[in-house]
Formats: sequence, C-alpha cells, structure tokens
Amino acid sequence: MGRRITILGSTGSIGNNSLEVIESLGPEYEVVGLAARSRWQQLLEQAHRFRPRAIAIGDATLIECVGARLNGTIDLLAGPEALVDLVRQGDCDFVISAIVGSAGLPATLAAAELGKDIGLASKEVLVVAGCLVVPLARRRGARLLPIDSEHSAIFQAMHAGKPEEVVKVYLTASGGPFREWSGEQMAQARLEDALRHPTWKMGPKITIDSATMMNKALEIVEAKWLFGLEPEAIEVLVHPESIVHSMVEFCDGSVIAQLGTPDMRTPIQYALTFPRRVRGPSRRLDLTSIRRMHFEPPDLDRFPALRLGYEVARLGGTAGAVLNGANEAAVQAFREGRIPFGQIVELTEDVLRRHSVIEEPDLDGLLAADAWARNEVAGCLMR
Amino acid sequence: MGRRITILGSTGSIGNNSLEVIESLGPEYEVVGLAARSRWQQLLEQAHRFRPRAIAIGDATLIECVGARLNGTIDLLAGPEALVDLVRQGDCDFVISAIVGSAGLPATLAAAELGKDIGLASKEVLVVAGCLVVPLARRRGARLLPIDSEHSAIFQAMHAGKPEEVVKVYLTASGGPFREWSGEQMAQARLEDALRHPTWKMGPKITIDSATMMNKALEIVEAKWLFGLEPEAIEVLVHPESIVHSMVEFCDGSVIAQLGTPDMRTPIQYALTFPRRVRGPSRRLDLTSIRRMHFEPPDLDRFPALRLGYEVARLGGTAGAVLNGANEAAVQAFREGRIPFGQIVELTEDVLRRHSVIEEPDLDGLLAADAWARNEVAGCLMR
Repeated sequence: MGRRITILGSTGSIGNNSLEVIESLGPEYEVVGLAARSRWQQLLEQAHRFRPRAIAIGDATLIECVGARLNGTIDLLAGPEALVDLVRQGDCDFVISAIVGSAGLPATLAAAELGKDIGLASKEVLVVAGCLVVPLARRRGARLLPIDSEHSAIFQAMHAGKPEEVVKVYLTASGGPFREWSGEQMAQARLEDALRHPTWKMGPKITIDSATMMNKALEIVEAKWLFGLEPEAIEVLVHPESIVHSMVEFCDGSVIAQLGTPDMRTPIQYALTFPRRVRGPSRRLDLTSIRRMHFEPPDLDRFPALRLGYEVARLGGTAGAVLNGANEAAVQAFREGRIPFGQIVELTEDVLRRHSVIEEPDLDGLLAADAWARNEVAGCLMR
Repeated sequence: MGRRITILGSTGSIGNNSLEVIESLGPEYEVVGLAARSRWQQLLEQAHRFRPRAIAIGDATLIECVGARLNGTIDLLAGPEALVDLVRQGDCDFVISAIVGSAGLPATLAAAELGKDIGLASKEVLVVAGCLVVPLARRRGARLLPIDSEHSAIFQAMHAGKPEEVVKVYLTASGGPFREWSGEQMAQARLEDALRHPTWKMGPKITIDSATMMNKALEIVEAKWLFGLEPEAIEVLVHPESIVHSMVEFCDGSVIAQLGTPDMRTPIQYALTFPRRVRGPSRRLDLTSIRRMHFEPPDLDRFPALRLGYEVARLGGTAGAVLNGANEAAVQAFREGRIPFGQIVELTEDVLRRHSVIEEPDLDGLLAADAWARNEVAGCLMR
C-alpha cells in the first residue's frame, strides 16, 4: 500500500526528516506536494529532487522568484490560499501537517474535509482546533496519525488492547534543562540555559516550551483530542533519558510502553506506513548500553504550565487557542529579552484567566481567540 | 465470550492464582475440570467451591479417599490416564496446563489435538515437546497462550505490530539472587541462598533455576517455539526490578515493552480473556514510586546455563527434553545436598554433550530422552 504525500512545512525539521523517510521507503511512497512559508531555495531543491506535481510558497511575494526557477512540469501555488489548494489536489492521499503556528490550520481542515489521512506534527492543529478537526476527521473518515514521539508511542501501545480498555496514559517528559533547578534559579534562567535541551535536538520555540514544560501541557491537550481521553486519565511522568516515549495502562493492570532512540524518523515512518512497519533509517536502541532509566513525578510548583494543560483540556472550546497563542507570544518576548523566563507561564496564565471560553467556536472564532491572546500578551508587555 | 476451563495442576501456585482470577471474572468463566497429583484435600475444597463437572487425581491410590467425600454430582477420575480423560470432556474449551514436569504432556497434547485453547504455564510443554505441540496446535487450530510473565509480555507487545515485523525479543531476567556474586562465591552457594529470590515468590525448583538462570535458558527455548523465532533473535537482558516483563523490537526500530507488578494473575487473566482485557485483581504498577529501572547484559561466564538455552533452541528435537530432564535431576541433587550449586549446570551440560539428538521424535521418544537424561545425572552422582 503506497502513499501519495503532501508535506505542509517541508523545509522545517519534520519536513526534512519526512523526506528522508519517504526516500528510504522506496517508490511506493511518492511526494506529490510540498509547501513552505518562505525558505524558497530549499523548497526548490526539494522540488527538483522529489518531483512533486505542485509546490506552494506561503509568502506570495516570492512567486516570481520561485516560478522563474521551475521548468513547467511542477505547478506553483503561492499566497495564503496556496496550502489549501495544494491539499485539494486530487492525487494526494496523505497530508503531513508540520507547519508551526496557525497558518497550517485551514489546509489541515481541508485535508480532513476530503477524508485524507493526516500525519500530525503541528501541535497547533489539535491544541488550537481539536474541537473542529477531530469531529470533522471522524465524520469524513480521515485518520489522524500522530507524528511526535509521545503520541506515536501512545498510538502504538494502544494496539496492544482496545481503546475502551485504556485506563491511563503516561506522557513521558525529559524534564528539560531545568529539571533539577530550584524555582529561584529558574525564574532568572537565561535564554542560552533554556535552549540547552538534554536529549532532543529541536527548534528554539519548542526547546523553550520544554524548559517550562508547556510542551507537555500542550501534549496533554493533544492527547485528550487524539485519543478521546479524560484529562484525569493523562499523567505526566518525568523520564530524563527520553527512551520510553510514553506508556498506556490497560484495565487489567498491564502497562505497554514504546521505547526507542530520540529519533523523529521513527514516528514519521510509522504514521506513513501504518498499520505496517518496515525497516527504516532510524537509529536502533541498544538497551544493554542504557543501563538505567529514571522516572519521577513532575513538580507542579516549579512547572505550573502543566496545571494549565489540564485546565485547558477540561475547558475545551477556545481555551486551547488562548493557551497556545499567549504562550507563543510570551516565549517570543522571552527570546527578545523582554521578560524573564519565570514570566512566560505567569503571563500565559494571566491571559487564560481573563478569557471567556466559547465552547463551540468555528475556525474564525478560534483564530480570533488566538489573536486576542497574543494581543493581551502584547498589552501586558506595554504596561 | 465466556470460557469453560479445565485446570491441570489446580493445587499449585498457578492453579490457585487461576482460580482466583476465574472467580473475579464472573459467571461467564466457568471451571469444568480440576486436576491435581496428590493434594487431594485442597482439590476437594476447590471442587466444592467451583463445582466442576469432573476432577482428576493423578495418584490412583487416592481414588477411594477422594470419592468418599464427593456427593455424586462431580465425576471423579484417577490415575495416569485421568488427565487426558478430563481434557477430553466435551464441554471444556480452555485448558490451563500448569503441571510441573512431563506428567502434563499427554493431556496437553490431547487438548491441542482437540483444538482447545491452551494456557501454557508449564515450561515442560514447550521445552520438552515444542516440536510436537506447536505443529499439532497449528494444525488443529488450538491457540497456545503463554501464562508466564515474560512470554505473556512478548505476546502482548507483539500486538503492536505483525509477527513478521519482529526483529528481536528481549527476555528480561531479574538476575536472581546471585546477580552480583562472584563465580567463586556462586560455586559454593548454599541452598538457602539460592532460594532467596529478589522479586518473585515461586516454588523451590523454579527459584533455583532462577539462581542458575536456567530458568531463562528454558524460556529461550519456549520463546523459539511459541513465537517461531530464530535463537539469534532472542536476547536476554538482566533487569533486577522485574517491572519490564519483556520487550519486542520491530523492524522500524520501535521497541514495545510490557510492564507491571510481579503478579502472575495478570498473564493468567490475559490468557483467559484474550483478545479482550478486563479489570482484574492484579496489583497496579505505580510508576512514580519506582523511580529507577536497571538493565545490563547477562554474564555468560557466571551463568553458562544461558549458552545451553541457545544451543538447545538451535538443536531442537530431543535436546529440550534432555536439558530439562538433566537440569531437574541436578537441581534435585543440589536440594538434597549431594552436589554444590556450581555443579547443577555443569552436570546438565555434560549430559547434553553426551546426547545424540533425535530430530523428529514422537512423545515416547521425548519421554525416553527425558528419562535417559535423568538416569545419566543419577549415574554421575554414583561415581
């Protein structure tokens, strides 16, 4: 069973890893669409290498620059609507949603509407718009396949039982660079401290989210949507070695865990080949060289972001959009040196407290909540 | 989907745990047959409580003693053929094979012949007679469901993929009481040292097997038969906490593990309810209270039994019967104070070296090999 794949966000880390996996999977797995926001040179290189039917560049001002370098065999789309048009191409049956931020939302919704399978790498899709995407995908028969190590681990482990037999999932967390720091030290942590992730190599935004553990808060919300879980059934477990990617506890007391090296190519490949597994480029886990694995409960006082994750998972509606938008703006402010590390979550929590949740918003309602939250953070920074 | 269950070896540890599980599963799970070798009083108590159609007592001299205490509603069978007759009862559809030693073999083969599902707790069934039981069960549509923590873990983990996608299984081992002892210390270990298992409460024979790691050698042979694995695809991993009960590595690099408290009721229940899972009496794993798990490769110099496991898995045929028979006799000699601890495996290896393997034996051939091995050990003890 092959796949005709469109990658939204092909020039990012997930995009590049996806292309590497697709190449290793052989000719049954074909790239039919590639989309990037502004990295046009890399997009062109990818286009020449993978020969998709069409590519899309989000930044419309780049259309001529890119167009001049394409020979007529690849269609070029540009501008805000381009991603949606790319997904609507008839020959694509699998969409990798890997665009950071809300820019990928309309195209991911379009994929769900058309019943295409979706590999979810972008957190925003479920955190911001889980209340739209999940029911739509279910209605249209689009499968949502997680592409991040934790949710892929849960998804894999769940196959050792039935969904209704799950009593709890354990989302593992490395604990980030500040796992052993005191609250006082953390409050004044510098940018370079926050960017020093112990086990995973990732972009700066997600690395900082890992330092506040907001990353895990967002994953609680994702897990709720993806697996239909009550927030109480989701437990965060700090596991500094990042080898156990997550675990599922079944009603009979059995706990099933998925383990592996910290290598994004494993969950990407599993999403693409599911329900099959094939050999791939991922690094192998050598269990005898690991020797030790640690587990500890997270410290909710030092990592209050986790509490927000549970709260937002309970609230639903526009709460996820506000959490995500406020956090993104606060992280940006920290990166610009405008607020200390300790204020990222504080500011986000303030904004969430001031928000009146709309329970069943449409996409415009979600985007408005997201904009409102960013605006609120900006307002706080002015004062 | 209910079950009508016959337990071969109902008065042992697995038998008692099985009855506890069956009771907690409710009226869909019915005991229709119980068999014990000689513990007639306990067998009678069980019969009065679970009201099977028939019970069997292996020791024929006890027939009158037991018969006098049964009111006519429960059939009584006795003697060597009684187990086979009990299994052949038409209303039984699941046989728990939990008799230690070769005494349970004919009845387990009869169950396979009749296409009944078999919960395998007795190691001997596969170690001694895997070459007969496995093809017979396949031919007759009898499912072989493992009832021990390691093979149940592998069986469960395998459901996260397909059998042909498995590249390796990791059989975990506590390492037993001598994990940190030197070879010299081990050679002179006393019986009470060998009986001090760090994590599992089991009978003396299996506890001593755990001290020599012959237990794990036998499990290598079992895993080969149960999952159709090449010996090279089976790796032993010492894990002193006995929380990860075993793991499966798939071709894509994902490793799926099953974890739980050391509680035999979990694998017993899973075998009975498979492919479902239900709430049961097992103790829950509290992962946050565990904190630490260790893994290390086994030391083949101090635990040469493991090498014998691989060798026997490669040899097949009568080799398993010889390994098992010689080991049982050697363990007995150690328990009687006739040989030091260090000679258990030495003696077993000597006997195995002298054996000419018959590749496709019948049951008589297997039992003859078993008897020959025991006799050889006895001969060595005379000298």
